[in-house]
Amino acid sequence: MSHPPSVGLLGFLAASLTTVSFFPQAIKTVRSGDTRGISLPMYALFTLGISCWALYGLVTRDGPLIVANAITLVPAGLILERKLRAVLAGRGRRT
Amino acid sequence: MSHPPSVGLLGFLAASLTTVSFFPQAIKTVRSGDTRGISLPMYALFTLGISCWALYGLVTRDGPLIVANAITLVPAGLILERKLRAVLAGRGRRT
Repeated sequence: MSHPPSVGLLGFLAASLTTVSFFPQAIKTVRSGDTRGISLPMYALFTLGISCWALYGLVTRDGPLIVANAITLVPAGLILERKLRAVLAGRGRRT
Repeated sequence: MSHPPSVGLLGFLAASLTTVSFFPQAIKTVRSGDTRGISLPMYALFTLGISCWALYGLVTRDGPLIVANAITLVPAGLILERKLRAVLAGRGRRT
């Protein structure tokens, strides 16, 4: 497929936005320690999902896919860790 | 590129996990009404990002990309709407 540069730019913008978006949530969660409104199933499924995406990128040798998902893994993993810690300490409800 | 079916399955699993993951968060947020731990910038950037992904899918005629992002738009948009409503009502902090 050959597309004009604007299409590639749109894809780059899309990937940047979805990747960057998890950072303000991670900063908020780590700073406030408030994980009550955070869903454990969401972050368990999502972290597993982006790990699969990164693995898929490795297998298909897709650089941008590897990089974007490896970056997203940092804030998503942090949020999951905080939520898990709160649940194990009995401070957060499960669902 | 031609890959064995297991690679396609890995990509499908990855897409399914990241798409499905937002539903438990949306259900939790709508049921509890607790958006204090939810980051407004995250859902603003993420919802804009998946809208760009869906548009990118439309332009490049990538069916799975359109479907996956259109589905994710539902729970992500719901969470954003609840958070925005709480912020406007003065019940949630901005960051």
